[in-house]
Amino acid sequence: MNPSEYLNIQKEHVDSYLDRYLLPETVKPESIHRAIRYSVFSGGKRFRAGLCIAACETFGGGLEHALPIASGIELIHAYSLIHDDLPCMDDDDLRRGKPTLHRVFGENIAVLAGDALNALAFDLISRAEDCSLIRILARAIGTEGMIGGQVADVESVEKVDLTVADVEFIHTRKTAALIRASLEMGALAGGAKDRDVEMIGEFGAYIGLAFQVVDDILDIESTDEVLGKNVGSDEDKDKATYPKVYGLARSKEIARNQIGRGKRILDRIERETEALRGLADFVIGRVY
Amino acid sequence: MNPSEYLNIQKEHVDSYLDRYLLPETVKPESIHRAIRYSVFSGGKRFRAGLCIAACETFGGGLEHALPIASGIELIHAYSLIHDDLPCMDDDDLRRGKPTLHRVFGENIAVLAGDALNALAFDLISRAEDCSLIRILARAIGTEGMIGGQVADVESVEKVDLTVADVEFIHTRKTAALIRASLEMGALAGGAKDRDVEMIGEFGAYIGLAFQVVDDILDIESTDEVLGKNVGSDEDKDKATYPKVYGLARSKEIARNQIGRGKRILDRIERETEALRGLADFVIGRVY
Repeated sequence: MNPSEYLNIQKEHVDSYLDRYLLPETVKPESIHRAIRYSVFSGGKRFRAGLCIAACETFGGGLEHALPIASGIELIHAYSLIHDDLPCMDDDDLRRGKPTLHRVFGENIAVLAGDALNALAFDLISRAEDCSLIRILARAIGTEGMIGGQVADVESVEKVDLTVADVEFIHTRKTAALIRASLEMGALAGGAKDRDVEMIGEFGAYIGLAFQVVDDILDIESTDEVLGKNVGSDEDKDKATYPKVYGLARSKEIARNQIGRGKRILDRIERETEALRGLADFVIGRVY
Repeated sequence: MNPSEYLNIQKEHVDSYLDRYLLPETVKPESIHRAIRYSVFSGGKRFRAGLCIAACETFGGGLEHALPIASGIELIHAYSLIHDDLPCMDDDDLRRGKPTLHRVFGENIAVLAGDALNALAFDLISRAEDCSLIRILARAIGTEGMIGGQVADVESVEKVDLTVADVEFIHTRKTAALIRASLEMGALAGGAKDRDVEMIGEFGAYIGLAFQVVDDILDIESTDEVLGKNVGSDEDKDKATYPKVYGLARSKEIARNQIGRGKRILDRIERETEALRGLADFVIGRVY
């Protein structure tokens, strides 16, 4: 099975799980439940969920062990996109080919929908009855992880002498931290030993960084139609990106190298890692 | 010991625990760590933490069992105040006698500081190694709890024919849900049986509603100096309040009745409930 097919299958599982979990739009206050569903079911690839499920299955766990966790991770991802798009952040109008949440529901409902999704994710993950999963997620999205990266990102806009270290600081936190956590949580839920959880985490750090570098490249080389959001927005906003500090050619090389390094870590795990390798290739396949 | 003294002692425990837990302001990105400390150590009463500790001790738990949970709850409370004060919500300039977070650090850092505190709270509560605590909190602050109340609150501003049911809907969710959860979580951490957790939750629902009714009353009868925030703001914003639908005198009576009902529930718990009774009186003591 190629990685796109694999992701599509997992996406169906996750979407159907989330559809059962999330409250219907008829529950009061209706606006927030409509807003949550608008943003959660807007056609994401469910890449993080796919990683979580693949990691869980790699160590012998079943889909049923991974699903609440993988679905919770997608709620976190949805919340982070909603808040990133806000007028006081990136002020984006388009996301996955549709108007951003605050453009449809207003800024206040967008803030609150993100807040609610943040909490709902922890509710879902609590179903695994393992508090170490809660800790991995909380740290991955805290000030040393995703939020820390987002803070550095919004602050980088005013910076004149942006360095390679600055961009790396942002990318490893803003994007790679949650991707890494998705794999660690999946592995843990699948019964992996500490050493394997650690290695799968290192794999995640590499492909997570590659994922964001590829995102930066696509923002230059793709089109609005293909990407479902405004391309060229990084340059417009003078954002800290890999192409900005390294140029396009070298950025592609870096992304490729990261994927290679990630895969070499998988060599050291004594399991069938084909699904994970496929997902690593999927990251780079978005560009080449 | 009177309830104010009790709260002051618990506040010292909680503040010192949070001071050790929260990252120092020197950690990158410094702005978010400064913002978090600015908002967390801005002089709250730690009423919710006090309830959590009192509930835990009522059932024989130690302070060490309650502290991570009580401290996590205060992080949630801090996050909710930051987001409530945002320009797209209540647009408040003053909180606890100081400029609101977005006035000092900007709107983007305020959104992100709230987001980070939301996640940090779950990290802290995970220390109790009991996923049912995670669930109680997540639901109390989700769309059927705190967020749902806040949504109804911001939407009530445009409503012309506000009913008693509308105001009750808002208050039981926006304020009472977290107060109720603070007590339930404390009781559970203290080893309370299901029946007792349920009763302590009912007690929480009563005093939580009273707490918000008193807040509404103080917004009319108190001063900026005493309250540390702009009084009269509910009326300015045409907010859904108890005094608006019931008048001041009847609102005071309702608050008093709620406290009385809450205390009668404590009669049915076969434990020493003096601390909890004191905290119930503290709610009403803010007005009379």
